[in-house]
Amino acid sequence: MNGAETLADTLLASGVTVCFANPGTSEMHFVSALDARPEMRCILCLFEGGVTGAADAYFRMSGQVAATLLHLAPGFANGIANLHNARKAGSGVLNVMGDHASYHLKFETPLKGDTEAMSRTVSHWTRKAEDAGSVARDGAEAVRAARSANGQIATLILPADAAWSEASGQAVAAPPPALPRPSQDQISAAARALQAPGAVLFLDGAVLRPEHSLWAVRVQKATGCRLMTHYLAGRIPRGEGAPRIQRLSYRIDDARADLKGVPELVLLGASRPAGFFAYPGKPSLSEDPSSRVTELCTAEMDTVWTLQALSVELGAEALAVTPADLQPYEPSSLPAGPITPAAIGQALAALMPSGTVVVDEAITASGPIAAATDKARAHDWLNVTGGAIGFGLPAAVGAAVACPDRRVLALQADGSAMYTLQSLWTMAREELDVTVVLLANRGYQILRLEMLNLGLPPAGGNARRMVDVAGPELDWVALAKGHGVEAVRVTDMDGFNTALAAGLGRKGPYLIEAVL
Amino acid sequence: MNGAETLADTLLASGVTVCFANPGTSEMHFVSALDARPEMRCILCLFEGGVTGAADAYFRMSGQVAATLLHLAPGFANGIANLHNARKAGSGVLNVMGDHASYHLKFETPLKGDTEAMSRTVSHWTRKAEDAGSVARDGAEAVRAARSANGQIATLILPADAAWSEASGQAVAAPPPALPRPSQDQISAAARALQAPGAVLFLDGAVLRPEHSLWAVRVQKATGCRLMTHYLAGRIPRGEGAPRIQRLSYRIDDARADLKGVPELVLLGASRPAGFFAYPGKPSLSEDPSSRVTELCTAEMDTVWTLQALSVELGAEALAVTPADLQPYEPSSLPAGPITPAAIGQALAALMPSGTVVVDEAITASGPIAAATDKARAHDWLNVTGGAIGFGLPAAVGAAVACPDRRVLALQADGSAMYTLQSLWTMAREELDVTVVLLANRGYQILRLEMLNLGLPPAGGNARRMVDVAGPELDWVALAKGHGVEAVRVTDMDGFNTALAAGLGRKGPYLIEAVL
Repeated sequence: MNGAETLADTLLASGVTVCFANPGTSEMHFVSALDARPEMRCILCLFEGGVTGAADAYFRMSGQVAATLLHLAPGFANGIANLHNARKAGSGVLNVMGDHASYHLKFETPLKGDTEAMSRTVSHWTRKAEDAGSVARDGAEAVRAARSANGQIATLILPADAAWSEASGQAVAAPPPALPRPSQDQISAAARALQAPGAVLFLDGAVLRPEHSLWAVRVQKATGCRLMTHYLAGRIPRGEGAPRIQRLSYRIDDARADLKGVPELVLLGASRPAGFFAYPGKPSLSEDPSSRVTELCTAEMDTVWTLQALSVELGAEALAVTPADLQPYEPSSLPAGPITPAAIGQALAALMPSGTVVVDEAITASGPIAAATDKARAHDWLNVTGGAIGFGLPAAVGAAVACPDRRVLALQADGSAMYTLQSLWTMAREELDVTVVLLANRGYQILRLEMLNLGLPPAGGNARRMVDVAGPELDWVALAKGHGVEAVRVTDMDGFNTALAAGLGRKGPYLIEAVL
Repeated sequence: MNGAETLADTLLASGVTVCFANPGTSEMHFVSALDARPEMRCILCLFEGGVTGAADAYFRMSGQVAATLLHLAPGFANGIANLHNARKAGSGVLNVMGDHASYHLKFETPLKGDTEAMSRTVSHWTRKAEDAGSVARDGAEAVRAARSANGQIATLILPADAAWSEASGQAVAAPPPALPRPSQDQISAAARALQAPGAVLFLDGAVLRPEHSLWAVRVQKATGCRLMTHYLAGRIPRGEGAPRIQRLSYRIDDARADLKGVPELVLLGASRPAGFFAYPGKPSLSEDPSSRVTELCTAEMDTVWTLQALSVELGAEALAVTPADLQPYEPSSLPAGPITPAAIGQALAALMPSGTVVVDEAITASGPIAAATDKARAHDWLNVTGGAIGFGLPAAVGAAVACPDRRVLALQADGSAMYTLQSLWTMAREELDVTVVLLANRGYQILRLEMLNLGLPPAGGNARRMVDVAGPELDWVALAKGHGVEAVRVTDMDGFNTALAAGLGRKGPYLIEAVL
């Protein structure tokens, strides 16, 4: 028995049963340990961003921490972007990163890098195992760290000699530390604030999960307040039977309008609403300067308890939630004509089955699609919480692994799809029920719009060459086929409707290139 | 005039004329500044690893620093792996990374990240511009830093408000600081050491450039020493007319044999030869424990002067170098039969034109191909210096931009190609003369071999799922077509020979999927 085997046993004993992996040579003993433990589901991704994005969405949909297996230094670095998204989503992820044998690090070798500094750029918790004997305990503490504060990024660095040297035993992760809670005075004050006409309860994190969000509806019924969340909240319940939660607009001017005249803004699990970027001459914050802002409970505190305490304080804990308090289902007809984001949304509203998990990296096409699916069948909506593009396809993998009985629908802009297109292969290998709607506008449309938002002159030659992805156009049917995923290109809504129905009805992945 | 415009002017005034780019919203003012300056060649890559790998190879082939344009935090992180390779190669690269406006950073926003910590994981020099007025000076110092110590990674972080605020003027990069040199005593001692029978002069860095490497041949003639370099040296001149430089073997046992009994080992621009990884029970260093090792001149010192001083010390500065001192050209015939790495090497030896730039990310197939092309027409050979895979296709882009009159041949393993396959698109857009030989063995063959090297049991289900890239197989003809690159699949050497001749003879990129 060696250190790597004690780690594998510790993960399993602690309830970590899925490992998204892209290993390299320094991780071979851990691979071998997993090989002897078929109860760990190992899922290969062909790029590290696919690994970390999958682990993020797996947590968002299952509430469970998955392990990742990443190669030392530059391997881990390739996973940082989607760990950044996971961090912003409050997802718990446990990274196992290899490293050189400790005695080998005094020499200059190709792959030597500062593994700890790389980890710390994005991890809440970083530890390098000292030796084989410490690996089981380190692993258990890493799992605990990943489960702490509602979900954190924990990275255990496993030097090759700690992996291969003799060790024995296993450890079991202790429960995470109790979450801090606001005082009863703070609960009472927030409850009073929410009774002001026009007040907003601004939510994010675990309180948005379907199993908790009805508490927010009770608070809403008792006070008349509006429920809102961030534009890029990690997971939003939507459609039939979901609470009526308004997403703050993306554009700063629109977001300011959303919050105009709000007397009381109570934040529960949410950060203060600030613009995605700053713009010259515009404010950073979206809130109305006249609003009184109450930071009731941060994302790292006991958000679910706080929401329940708020409803108890308001005498609303026993309030019946009826269909009239929730989003209704409104049947939608299939649209015809040219392909537009709004028409795609309408088709989704007509065809998406109940329980669909929508992974939204549609970027500029997202708004109209979201608007049109507001009253579709019940679904969850996952966002690019950290703005690091290349989230969508990996997240679709993770969501599908977490929810094998649900349909995953990836709304995917073409420019951002290119960052992690390798995830298509994992969908094919794992036969995941993912339908990818690839929105092909042949460029970074968001950049074209932001140049306008910033008041910059229209793009000339050099700028067009940096925002247009044309000359040549990407052929997404070929790209999907190359990864082993069947695909079709459609150029009008009749074609889209047919393709969507086919995609949603089949086992395994399917990609629809919708030419905008 | 704003800060971004002063930076663009400063780069141009300092001789930086190529910018590999993958911008985001926070970089729009710099994009706009470049838009107004068509003398900057802006080259879009659809993933940040493509940007940084291109800049690395551009430096290796031109000796010139290119700029990169990267989005803040996670955007930069996606470029770290190939910056790691660039760092190990001693390449000068100037990164311009955006950031939020300084006053916006006090708020929690999706893309907010620790840009400076991200940079420092891989950069020798990091600075965040304080305000628009400092940007020109900061830019000039960044260029100087990138050119210092023979080539460094320099990262200038450009907050959005420093980019968009009023500024004027431009700066010009000062010459880099003089490089430290060994003492005359050290030169003399090294010259004496090299005269011992069986001595080795171990070279790396700029001294291997064709224009400098003849000095090594003079030292070799004067002393009878062997010339050697690291297995993954950044750029090695090879083929007809190149010095006879032996690459240290990859496997530690073979490398130990290469250096067995060497009495004197003189390092010039090279680090001490250590194994790529450590292996249980095997030594870290490849050198013979009985060797006397002289670290004459590190990679950051004046390696070219030192090599010349060594030849002067040996009275060899005027020695004529004749064809007999150099690699001969030996005509090769076209092989038939099944596709093997050795047969591919033989075909390359027969068909590669003089001046070809070979980018080698063939990994396990590399050895036999290199052996077979040792006496081919003159060519340069670029390696994955830092072992961070996903180098090959981006580097082929950078080499082709640096050398528009030369043919670039990318020897590319399939597993590693997947990390940065987006570079195919840039080849198509820029119409680069790159022939990609895609070696399809359907897996991470290096991992299969390393499991054996480490004495691990044969791969079972979980391990096979982590080292085999099959089920489904990747279709590289489709993947290339999806990126706008023509491609062909070949399954025997007749087909390969025909495809290679066609690829080398055409304008623009071409991909040959060679099924092993």
